[in-house]
Amino acid sequence: MTAFADRLFAAVDRVHNPTVLGLDPKLDFVPASIRERAVRAFSDPAQATAEALLEFNRRLIDALSDLVAVVKPQFAYYEMLGPHGVRCLADTIRHAKDRGMVVIADAKRNDIGPTAEAYARSILGETDLVDGTKHAFLDADAVTLNAYLGIDGVEPFLSVCDRLGKGVFLLVRTSNPSAVDFQDLTLADGRLLYEAVAAKVTGWGATRIASCGYSSVGAVVGATWPEQARTLRRLMPTAPILVPGYGAQGATADDAAANFDAQGRGAVVNASRSLMCAYNLKYHEGRLTAEDFESAARTEAARMRDDLTAAIGRKRTDA
Amino acid sequence: MTAFADRLFAAVDRVHNPTVLGLDPKLDFVPASIRERAVRAFSDPAQATAEALLEFNRRLIDALSDLVAVVKPQFAYYEMLGPHGVRCLADTIRHAKDRGMVVIADAKRNDIGPTAEAYARSILGETDLVDGTKHAFLDADAVTLNAYLGIDGVEPFLSVCDRLGKGVFLLVRTSNPSAVDFQDLTLADGRLLYEAVAAKVTGWGATRIASCGYSSVGAVVGATWPEQARTLRRLMPTAPILVPGYGAQGATADDAAANFDAQGRGAVVNASRSLMCAYNLKYHEGRLTAEDFESAARTEAARMRDDLTAAIGRKRTDA
Repeated sequence: MTAFADRLFAAVDRVHNPTVLGLDPKLDFVPASIRERAVRAFSDPAQATAEALLEFNRRLIDALSDLVAVVKPQFAYYEMLGPHGVRCLADTIRHAKDRGMVVIADAKRNDIGPTAEAYARSILGETDLVDGTKHAFLDADAVTLNAYLGIDGVEPFLSVCDRLGKGVFLLVRTSNPSAVDFQDLTLADGRLLYEAVAAKVTGWGATRIASCGYSSVGAVVGATWPEQARTLRRLMPTAPILVPGYGAQGATADDAAANFDAQGRGAVVNASRSLMCAYNLKYHEGRLTAEDFESAARTEAARMRDDLTAAIGRKRTDA
Repeated sequence: MTAFADRLFAAVDRVHNPTVLGLDPKLDFVPASIRERAVRAFSDPAQATAEALLEFNRRLIDALSDLVAVVKPQFAYYEMLGPHGVRCLADTIRHAKDRGMVVIADAKRNDIGPTAEAYARSILGETDLVDGTKHAFLDADAVTLNAYLGIDGVEPFLSVCDRLGKGVFLLVRTSNPSAVDFQDLTLADGRLLYEAVAAKVTGWGATRIASCGYSSVGAVVGATWPEQARTLRRLMPTAPILVPGYGAQGATADDAAANFDAQGRGAVVNASRSLMCAYNLKYHEGRLTAEDFESAARTEAARMRDDLTAAIGRKRTDA
C-alpha cells in the first residue's frame, strides 16, 4: 500500500503540475447543449440537473487528465441536488480515479467519536450494510477537515487513513477575508490561533511520514496570505499543503509559491472557477462560449502550470 | 412567517419537554425484525439498509411525537449509505415535520461565499434545477455550523434563515474531552477562544431577535461542562442553546440545566443513544430487547422530561 503523500506527489510529478482541479460545478457554468440534452433525457429535473453536471465534470476531467493530476470536488454543490447529486459526486470521483487522478474530498467535516468514524467511512472507507456486505460509496483519497473539536474529531479519520493509505487536510489558515475573525486571534503565549492549529497538524503527522518526507496529515493554507504561508511552511515542514485562493480569489502564483518547500514540492494549488469557466477568462477576449469549455480549460491549465512552475523557480532562486 | 426561536420554544412548550431526539441511527440499534424485512424487500443492500433505518426512525418519531418536539438527525449516519442514505435523511426529516416536530440538521457545515450558500440551500432552502424549477431537498428548520472561517462562513446561512424563518447553532464549546485542544486556549486579552466565539454569536444574533427574546443564531454548548455553560449563558443571553452530552456522554440533568435562563427556557437538550437504544438502559434490568424500542423510548423520554424539569426547577430556586 502506497502512502497518501507518496501517491499525491507522484501524481503531481507525472504531469509536472501542482494544480488541483476544483470541481464546484454550478449550472450556470454548463454549456446549454449539455443542459438541454439532460432535460430531454431525464424526466426528473433533479436527475437531469445531476446528469448535466456529471457530463460536464467527466468531459472536463477527460480534457485535463494529462495536464492536471488532482481533483477536489466541493461537496456542497452535489449535496444540494439530493440523492441524485450524491450519485453524481460518486460517479465524478470514480471517473477521476479511473483517469489516474488523486481525489481530495472538500467536505470540511468535523465531529467526534463514532460520528467522525461514520464520516470517515462515508468519504474514505467502507460502510457495513444490512446483508453483511460492505460498500465504498465515495472512496476518495483524502478529505478536508475542520479541527475546532480537537483530536477527538481527527483521530477517527486518521485510523481510516492509516489503514487505507489515505490522507486529511486540516483547515489552518483559510483564504477568505473573515479568516481573521478567529484564526488570527493572538493567544496568551504569543502565538496566533492558526499557528496553534499548525503545531497540532505537525504533531499528529509525526508518526505518519511517507517515503517522500511528507505525512498523511496535510493543511489548508490560503494563497491569499503569502506572509502567513511562509511561517506555516516552517511550522509544518512535513504537511502537504492544499492552497486555495489562486485565480478567482485574487492570489498570484508568487503568493501560492510561498507554500512550497526549498525543493519546489510539498504543496498543491487549487483552481475551480478559472478552470471550469476558463472560456470566460479575459485573455480570450470574449471569443469563446461555454461550448468551448474543454479547450479553454486545457489552455488555462497549461498556462497555470507554467505560471506556478516559474513562480516556484523564482522562489527557489531567492531562497 | 414565525421566527425560528419562536417556533422552537413553542414546540418545547407544547410537550413541556426540552428534549431533542438525536437520530444517529446505526444498524446495531435496529431490531432484527426490521432488518430482516428490509433485506427481503429490497435487493440492493444499500437501499435495504436505508429502508431499515427509515422504518426505525419513523416508528421512533411516531412513538415519541407527543413527548418530544425536536429531532436532530446526525448527517454522517445517512451520508455513509450514499444516495439511498440521503433519501432516508430527507424522508426522516419530512416525517418529523409532518408530526409537528422541529428539525435541527446536525451537519456542522463550514465553508465560504457561494459554497456556504450552496450548503444553506441544500439543508435549509431550495435548489435551482436545470428545467427552471426549484426543489427543497431537506428543508430542515435549523443547522449546526462550525465558525472557524468567521462571518464569511455564517452570513450566507443567515441570509437564508432570515428569508425563511430558520436558524443556526454555532459550535461554541463542544462536549468531547479534546474540546480543550483549541476551544480552551487563552487569548492575549484574557478570554478563552470559545468565549470569543460566544461574543460573535451574540453579535450576529443582535438584529435577529424573535418575540420570545431569543435570536435565530444559537450555540452548541456541551452539557459535560456546566461551569463553562454558566459563563456562556451570560455571554449569550439571546442565543438558543443546543446541549449535547446528556446521558450516554455522562452529563446529568443538573449539568444540562446550567444552560437554561432564569425562566427555565432558552435551551434544548439532546439525547441520541439513550432514546434510540432505551431498551438497553440499566433500569430495565435486561428485561427488554431491541423489539421493544418504541415503548422503551417512551418510558425514557418521560423520565428524561421529568429529570430535566426537576433540575431546571432546582436551578431556578437556587438563583
